[in-house]
Amino acid sequence: MEETSREAMESKEERGDMHDLESDTLHTPLLQRRNTLSASHLALVGAKVSHIESLDYEINESDVFKHDWRNRTNIEVLQYVSLKWGMAFLVGLLTGVIASGINLAIENIAGYKMLTVVNLVREKRYWAGFWYFTGVNFALTAFAATLCVLFAPTAAGPGIPEIKAYLNGVDTPNMYGANVLIVKIFGSIGAVSAGLDLGKEGPLVHIGACISSLLSQGGSDKYRLNWKWLKYFKNDRDRRDLITCGSSAGVCAAFRSPIGGVLFSLEEVATWWRNALLWRAFFSTAIVVVVLRGFIELCNSGKCGLFGRGGLILFDVSDVTVTYHINDLLPITIVGVLGGVLGGIYNILLPKVLRVYNLINEKGRLAKLLLALGVCLFTSVALYFLPFLAPCMPCDESFGSACPSSGRSGNFKQFNCPNGHYNDLATLLHATNDDAVRNIFSTSTPNEFRTASLLIFFGIYCILGLITFGIAVPSGLFLPIILMGSAYGRLVAKAFSAYIHIDPGLYAVLGAAALMAGIMRMTVSVCIIFLELTNNLLLLPIMMFVLLISKSIGDGMNPSIYEIILDMKGLPFLDAHPEPWMRNLTVGELAAVKESVIYLGVVEKVSRIVEVLRSTSHNGFPVIDQGSDSENRVKEIHGLVLRSHLIKILSKKWFLKERRRTEDWEVRERFSSVELAEKAVKLEVDLTEEELEMYVDLHPFTNTTPYTVVETMSVAKAMVLFRQVGLRHLLIVPKYQGSGIDPVVGILTRQDLRAHNILGAFPELAKKAHKN
Amino acid sequence: MEETSREAMESKEERGDMHDLESDTLHTPLLQRRNTLSASHLALVGAKVSHIESLDYEINESDVFKHDWRNRTNIEVLQYVSLKWGMAFLVGLLTGVIASGINLAIENIAGYKMLTVVNLVREKRYWAGFWYFTGVNFALTAFAATLCVLFAPTAAGPGIPEIKAYLNGVDTPNMYGANVLIVKIFGSIGAVSAGLDLGKEGPLVHIGACISSLLSQGGSDKYRLNWKWLKYFKNDRDRRDLITCGSSAGVCAAFRSPIGGVLFSLEEVATWWRNALLWRAFFSTAIVVVVLRGFIELCNSGKCGLFGRGGLILFDVSDVTVTYHINDLLPITIVGVLGGVLGGIYNILLPKVLRVYNLINEKGRLAKLLLALGVCLFTSVALYFLPFLAPCMPCDESFGSACPSSGRSGNFKQFNCPNGHYNDLATLLHATNDDAVRNIFSTSTPNEFRTASLLIFFGIYCILGLITFGIAVPSGLFLPIILMGSAYGRLVAKAFSAYIHIDPGLYAVLGAAALMAGIMRMTVSVCIIFLELTNNLLLLPIMMFVLLISKSIGDGMNPSIYEIILDMKGLPFLDAHPEPWMRNLTVGELAAVKESVIYLGVVEKVSRIVEVLRSTSHNGFPVIDQGSDSENRVKEIHGLVLRSHLIKILSKKWFLKERRRTEDWEVRERFSSVELAEKAVKLEVDLTEEELEMYVDLHPFTNTTPYTVVETMSVAKAMVLFRQVGLRHLLIVPKYQGSGIDPVVGILTRQDLRAHNILGAFPELAKKAHKN
Repeated sequence: MEETSREAMESKEERGDMHDLESDTLHTPLLQRRNTLSASHLALVGAKVSHIESLDYEINESDVFKHDWRNRTNIEVLQYVSLKWGMAFLVGLLTGVIASGINLAIENIAGYKMLTVVNLVREKRYWAGFWYFTGVNFALTAFAATLCVLFAPTAAGPGIPEIKAYLNGVDTPNMYGANVLIVKIFGSIGAVSAGLDLGKEGPLVHIGACISSLLSQGGSDKYRLNWKWLKYFKNDRDRRDLITCGSSAGVCAAFRSPIGGVLFSLEEVATWWRNALLWRAFFSTAIVVVVLRGFIELCNSGKCGLFGRGGLILFDVSDVTVTYHINDLLPITIVGVLGGVLGGIYNILLPKVLRVYNLINEKGRLAKLLLALGVCLFTSVALYFLPFLAPCMPCDESFGSACPSSGRSGNFKQFNCPNGHYNDLATLLHATNDDAVRNIFSTSTPNEFRTASLLIFFGIYCILGLITFGIAVPSGLFLPIILMGSAYGRLVAKAFSAYIHIDPGLYAVLGAAALMAGIMRMTVSVCIIFLELTNNLLLLPIMMFVLLISKSIGDGMNPSIYEIILDMKGLPFLDAHPEPWMRNLTVGELAAVKESVIYLGVVEKVSRIVEVLRSTSHNGFPVIDQGSDSENRVKEIHGLVLRSHLIKILSKKWFLKERRRTEDWEVRERFSSVELAEKAVKLEVDLTEEELEMYVDLHPFTNTTPYTVVETMSVAKAMVLFRQVGLRHLLIVPKYQGSGIDPVVGILTRQDLRAHNILGAFPELAKKAHKN
Repeated sequence: MEETSREAMESKEERGDMHDLESDTLHTPLLQRRNTLSASHLALVGAKVSHIESLDYEINESDVFKHDWRNRTNIEVLQYVSLKWGMAFLVGLLTGVIASGINLAIENIAGYKMLTVVNLVREKRYWAGFWYFTGVNFALTAFAATLCVLFAPTAAGPGIPEIKAYLNGVDTPNMYGANVLIVKIFGSIGAVSAGLDLGKEGPLVHIGACISSLLSQGGSDKYRLNWKWLKYFKNDRDRRDLITCGSSAGVCAAFRSPIGGVLFSLEEVATWWRNALLWRAFFSTAIVVVVLRGFIELCNSGKCGLFGRGGLILFDVSDVTVTYHINDLLPITIVGVLGGVLGGIYNILLPKVLRVYNLINEKGRLAKLLLALGVCLFTSVALYFLPFLAPCMPCDESFGSACPSSGRSGNFKQFNCPNGHYNDLATLLHATNDDAVRNIFSTSTPNEFRTASLLIFFGIYCILGLITFGIAVPSGLFLPIILMGSAYGRLVAKAFSAYIHIDPGLYAVLGAAALMAGIMRMTVSVCIIFLELTNNLLLLPIMMFVLLISKSIGDGMNPSIYEIILDMKGLPFLDAHPEPWMRNLTVGELAAVKESVIYLGVVEKVSRIVEVLRSTSHNGFPVIDQGSDSENRVKEIHGLVLRSHLIKILSKKWFLKERRRTEDWEVRERFSSVELAEKAVKLEVDLTEEELEMYVDLHPFTNTTPYTVVETMSVAKAMVLFRQVGLRHLLIVPKYQGSGIDPVVGILTRQDLRAHNILGAFPELAKKAHKN
């Protein structure tokens, strides 16, 4: 065995010249701890260079597990099922309550801010208004950014890419702690109230996921409550399911869209999906809707300050009849095409901005804070002064008594204009983000906005949309995209105003949806979310047509923004489809360029285990039955043992004096499957010389049924297996076995199956792939 | 090699005593053609005892395929993608047009029938009315049943279980032909117009699937159009995807519910699902909605005879405000509980009725026809005469001018009553099925129906719901369930009428949904379909609550009705979850009770191939590389070759004079991957003695990367792999290889992984499983 591995090392070195440059990335241990996140972590996670581990969604069929599984009573099964549903209920309840609180806080803070500014402007005290506006925004941004920088750097950004990676099996570190949850809540309130070009939607998804994660581990990591009834719940699979429910609940809370929430998780976030989960996620979102509904009814009685119906129903157009007319075909197509093109361009520019921000953010906490405050200042100045460029427009009689509107909201802001006039740019810019969306979406107002105002609005929000996302505050992408999209949608409607039969307000909706599809490449869920937002099913066919166009064009240009961010963060996300060239590469060839496999015997010496654990960072080791009688016997594969289980054994000092196989009862006295399913702790155990010379029987802990592929299997098919079954390790067995041949020729992990890493090791494939 | 297989045969015989009884079922060939459908085929498929094959959703990575895959130009890829979308478009378009036509026909035929009957009754010509009513129903049923019996026996029933099985990988025979499509369309029109207790919803799903299947194979099997551009589309995977789109389009056409249609496919019908498919299915349903919308607009101008808005929007209650009140909690809970209990009882009784019907239907075509006509007679008599039991009720002033209503539809049928009075039972029974649903769902009519009338309505539809389903006409289960459910929903509302705050009409909706969940065990899709039907999102939380209760109770009693029917039809459907005891059985143990594997060499004699094909009915054979030099070399597995490819080789007579390996160009001259992907034809080829002595090189046709499991793998995990990856054959490789040991110890197919079959072979497991 020693010899074989030495041989393998040598042969590896011989091949070394072939791929010298890539050797660093490929000859690292199985789970490439050191290499991920090192080169290209994003601005948003700048402060964090951490190990990324994979999650284990496979059922570990060891003896201990099987025994416990067999002995589960019906009551325990029932407890487990009720716990799942109870958790889903709690996730919905808490997400709903927190979302209500966030909405309440934002509407009031931003509302009172805007009210004061409007009053100051009406009194022609323009500079006082500016200082007030900018000062409040500055303070709120400082609050949000400080929270974020000091207590939870990972709370910056939307969090959706990380959730997507988690559900794919990547254990994104520090993403679901209690500190992240709290910073996300208060940071989001601060950042959105500050009038920055970002939304609460993305953060709400992350909040839902955080709640799920905290619930499923029974409290915070630090102050961990160890309730007995939670013990059925401590495994990656159940956590994954609950986090799926949580992200559905988050989207639902953001848009009050229960079906859209579930489909968002299904389409964008989740990698695996089961019918039972569909139903449970839907249950969570229904609870959220009930909570939000109760909250709105409570607020309708006037107890919530400035909180109206805003923030929860963005735009109800159920009373607008949509008629289909051939004249609308061209402008609708243009909206779709522009959505795709603009989305593609956005996806090219945003990463560039993020790279620059990354350089700034890496300089330290102060730099992060200053960047956020700089963006805040720019935003405040632009939003405050731009409306002064627009001329005052007389109120048309058709607008009715709503023009000019007084107070903070309303569709016809008087701003600096004489009575009977309004400033259309102030309507869009001197408003909270939600109000701005509502104003630009408004129907029956075809002539309200001038083309120049819409152009200015579009331009400034394109700039803000690019520069705001990377700063160190919780920020969602949905709202900036909706603002940009609605602007160009209305512009298109304006250009064709003589011909169109559909309300320009609906064009704004279509533009927002098209840009969303162009940037995020979601389709069904965007469609449903907008339908539920606008409450008008008649829009459906037109919207699908638009989304189809913009998604196709966007896909022709680049991947979705979430995939780009995933890639920038170095998260080893596994795609659904293998690349075509993967069919021409076998896993055997892939295994050959990796380090040789490190085995353990079925009954292994303690010192060897300690050495293996210390010298490698692998998370799974094949267990080999070398036979007891003679050297001639061929080694057989017994299974796979996890690092975390080895650590458990060492810390419990469950050692044997002699090399023997243990009885079942010996193990069961000391270990239960629940205990083994828990996360591994660090290895901090002092072993005496005597103990190091003792033995450990690995039989009961070994997963005797790991998934395997023969070395002639193509990488494409191995990847399908790996992803479909949700694996962490995939063993490669040789085509032909016999004495002298290792029973396992390699172990594939998530990193090994990523196209980027493979192409690094096989440059000739990269050339071919590029050529095609 | 010969020896080994003889040994295996002997050892198998030694074990024979252990499981003598099961040997018949287990020692049959790989694909157990003869055993399926033999014992327990249903009434509906009584005439058809056919072979059931599995579908191959795995990518066959043979040399020929890989070469063609590599050489695909970008244009070809684009053609392929556009073809997929074009097909999805066509499926939506055709389904929408056909659904419109069916609705138009039914509304007119049933409408004029009811109009005449109503007029006859008003003239007190009761017997004339009866004869007319019964005569027309009799003729329509005779038409539908004759079509069905003579031309397409498989068109009977809803077809949904077979589609579900197809998408799981079971090639249900004779299900998607042009004859089935036509019989389904006209049979459905006849049966529904005849007033039988069945709906057009299930058949519409089947119609959508038929259209997809016919499109994807480029026309009917018999008159097959062989368009060149369709050649990219001839494989099981693409057909599967298109049939998923088709069934979504069908549900959408049935309920005008685009989102519900997609979710129905996702939740109930499909086994595999990808995001791209989600979007394509949604595209199909959107097209259907557009077509239906255009059709309704056309009909609004009065060109469609008696076709009103009926049949497409069942029930629009978007103007009813739903208030939540604690008093409603108890009756709502009761609705949910009753839904579960009644659903469970229905699922117990229906199979019993179907078994009896099976005995009748097996007697021949005439018996089938007579059974259908008998049911029709019973239905007609009951529906016609029962209303005479109900007393006339005076029209309340609150009903307004709608009471009594004249004509065929309307909520207050005058029937045999004096002016100013109405007969509430006639409102429910003397109406088309859709009108009955609309009447019982109607809101603001809390006192319209008497308890006795509702009880009679509920009772008669329970009986009809049980006896109608199994007759030889196209029949959907949705409508009977909605009728039963709405009746008991209103009854519950009536019992609590003093306390409830929700309209009794909504209780009818809740009852219908609850019973649907209790019988079909769908939840999310039922929820969405009812939401889209009723167009009232406020119902959502209550409905989810009810569905949750009824599904849980139903699941406690028995499986869903579709699963029961699948089981009765003997379709080898593979469940998502392995049974717990499968963790304690290895695939090696399973392989040991099966027939030994039949190998082919990489370069094999023609006579051997012919013999193997003739003597077995296996669909895949492992190809073994026996080495060229000496007897001592260990046999290596080269891959798996499909029966259909062997037949193609034989029919093309691609033989070699000597035992040698061919060059790539030799193969490509004769075979393309598109050709190989086509369905196998029958082996009808005459071979000379000389040809039989020649050789075939199987290298280029062998799938060199079949999925494998080691013999120590548990059946549970093998099943997860099998289902997740969509396999047809799963090779079992030995734990240890060496000379004398076969490189493949078994092949698992769909049948081998079914719990029922395994328990048959391992009675001791069955006892344990039963004990738990």
